[in-house]
Amino acid sequence: MGLIVQKYGGTSVADLERIRNVARRVAKTFDDGNDVVVVISAMAGVTDGLMKMSANISEKPQKRELDVLLATGEQTTAALLAMTLCAMNYPARSLLGFQAEVRTDCDYGNARIVDIGTDRIRRLMTGRTIVVVAGFQGCDPEGNITTLGRGGSDTSAVAIAAALKADTCEIYTDVDGIYTADPNICPRARKLKVISYDEMLNMASLGAKVLQIRSVGFAKKYNVPVHVRSSFNGEEGTMVVNEDSGMEKLIVTAVTHDKDQARITLKKVPDQPGIAAKIFTPITEAKIVVDMIIQNTRAGGQTDLTFTVPESDFPRAMEIEREVARQIGAEEVFGGKNIAKVSVIGVGMRNHSGVASTMFNTLAKENVNIIMISTSEIRISCVIEEKYIELAVRVLHSAFGLDR
Amino acid sequence: MGLIVQKYGGTSVADLERIRNVARRVAKTFDDGNDVVVVISAMAGVTDGLMKMSANISEKPQKRELDVLLATGEQTTAALLAMTLCAMNYPARSLLGFQAEVRTDCDYGNARIVDIGTDRIRRLMTGRTIVVVAGFQGCDPEGNITTLGRGGSDTSAVAIAAALKADTCEIYTDVDGIYTADPNICPRARKLKVISYDEMLNMASLGAKVLQIRSVGFAKKYNVPVHVRSSFNGEEGTMVVNEDSGMEKLIVTAVTHDKDQARITLKKVPDQPGIAAKIFTPITEAKIVVDMIIQNTRAGGQTDLTFTVPESDFPRAMEIEREVARQIGAEEVFGGKNIAKVSVIGVGMRNHSGVASTMFNTLAKENVNIIMISTSEIRISCVIEEKYIELAVRVLHSAFGLDR
Repeated sequence: MGLIVQKYGGTSVADLERIRNVARRVAKTFDDGNDVVVVISAMAGVTDGLMKMSANISEKPQKRELDVLLATGEQTTAALLAMTLCAMNYPARSLLGFQAEVRTDCDYGNARIVDIGTDRIRRLMTGRTIVVVAGFQGCDPEGNITTLGRGGSDTSAVAIAAALKADTCEIYTDVDGIYTADPNICPRARKLKVISYDEMLNMASLGAKVLQIRSVGFAKKYNVPVHVRSSFNGEEGTMVVNEDSGMEKLIVTAVTHDKDQARITLKKVPDQPGIAAKIFTPITEAKIVVDMIIQNTRAGGQTDLTFTVPESDFPRAMEIEREVARQIGAEEVFGGKNIAKVSVIGVGMRNHSGVASTMFNTLAKENVNIIMISTSEIRISCVIEEKYIELAVRVLHSAFGLDR
Repeated sequence: MGLIVQKYGGTSVADLERIRNVARRVAKTFDDGNDVVVVISAMAGVTDGLMKMSANISEKPQKRELDVLLATGEQTTAALLAMTLCAMNYPARSLLGFQAEVRTDCDYGNARIVDIGTDRIRRLMTGRTIVVVAGFQGCDPEGNITTLGRGGSDTSAVAIAAALKADTCEIYTDVDGIYTADPNICPRARKLKVISYDEMLNMASLGAKVLQIRSVGFAKKYNVPVHVRSSFNGEEGTMVVNEDSGMEKLIVTAVTHDKDQARITLKKVPDQPGIAAKIFTPITEAKIVVDMIIQNTRAGGQTDLTFTVPESDFPRAMEIEREVARQIGAEEVFGGKNIAKVSVIGVGMRNHSGVASTMFNTLAKENVNIIMISTSEIRISCVIEEKYIELAVRVLHSAFGLDR
């Protein structure tokens, strides 16, 4: 018996039959004597449909109103699930973002949770009511509806779990856990029983796409045990926990890849103080995330500067940098989308040398040229030509002993 | 220049193109220097679709959750219209029921407006912002979402107009005004320029279906001039106003009909004090509205009692009365749906006798048998066999000089 927050993603609530499945799972957890708070996403495809509708109105739909529109998706599912539970004679009640007191800043479309008032949820739980919270949404200090950005329901769930000091936050999705690599391109990938917050943070940002990265940050900050599992079967998934929780310490835990990469090169940039700020400030102001940067010094006080951005931001970033190049007197701007990033991740890397050389040698043996490299304490990433990415994942998975 | 509340019904906002039309009309009113508050309904068919979805979950979906679900309909349209206005460079902002401070009781599905806080709307209008309010919805003292019942957006609009002391409340719909009879069955029906609140109250309850009856009550109570007109053309519609507003005083203003009628007869009811209460209390408790009642005394301390209910409530009402009949010892319960009601309405009737006899004679001349009669100060209604209803409307329309 405990307090469990369960989050169900879009595919888990895609239609009334699946919502019924979710209700049965929730009911089972409740019958076991637990207090249950359910956080739900919009039905699969609904958010995209609403986005499309708004795109028909304007290329840049007004952000506040877009949030009002998008919030209907989760509102619908929350009502349907609560209704289904009531029809099964379970006491259930839906709460929208403003009702659950999910207080955010007013950055529409990408709002940050500032605070969650737990009084109402606690009162309902004390009365043994199942609380169904519409994920992805909150409200700002003025009472305007805000949304948390793509995958925001994960963050809603973890934040609510943190605020309630829940025993576990279960994230139900259409995959059954975190794998050592993407099983679609690496058939020997294995499901992990446990992974640390830090590894997961590196996984998420590298495209594992199972958990929204912000939710993992939240989980780490408040030490919320997160259980990633499938809503389509009863199997245990992967626990995302604190590193100290008696985890088996592998040197490398997973190999991830990300094809959503593009690179931009500014050629013959005058090598002066402040030049980097001139190049990257406009990119940052356009809210484009720069991942890797390399700089090659040429003779004669000039450098070539290359960096990577998400593929979807590539055209905008090119436009910005062409203008920058004109202003700073760089010779040329060019770029391309035919690159991808492969990474090896593992908290065990902290205490082991030789991971980088194994990685580089393994790629070299397959004649895969490394274009850029970046590292963190627990991750090494290489940008390579996109056509080699599946090969790279498979050979690295073998090389680090992850094959089943 | 003034303060105008405009309400657009479901067919007026049925798709993005129609929403654009609405936006243009709103913009025009705004450009003329008026402050504009727009109240919108869900897109045509959306509420029905949501009702159907909930019916797939349960025959009796939990009422609170049903309101949360239904409220998404108006939320969607409000966001889309505000977004469209913004895309046209008009300052617009949507407000949901709770944001517009539409405070109601907590009778889910049929909530009554208790109060409307106008501060936020006024503040927005002072800044020359067009306010788009989601109709049909409010919130109760606990912050739960409530809905006002079918056609509730009319009530939202009139209540907001009353609270703001608006100059006019324009109700845009798919008909272009109030007619002297249903043009579908009476080709000689004419559009009325003006009609009184009291006449409209009698029209609405008799099936004119243009305005929700509660909205007319509100309009009368707060003396809000209501302009019923079409969103598909620029023509003047019908003004619904106070009787004293220099209206042309016709004896009979309109002939209306209602096919949604069924009758139930309890035969040989013991004629004792308190028997009527025994018969009607369970019906009232089931929230079935009884319209007309007649009682025929038989010899031997027994009476036959006949009353009418809406057709949709007929099976439930029959069930209830069979049980009542058993308890009170009535001989038999029977009923049928093959009846309809025709009414003549007019404030001029107050000062004219002879309306009733003209009505009865006109129907008699066509051999239409009158089953039941009821009257008010400004209305006479007759229940007749359903098959004669179109004939009855047409001959009465002629007899009272309403033909064009």
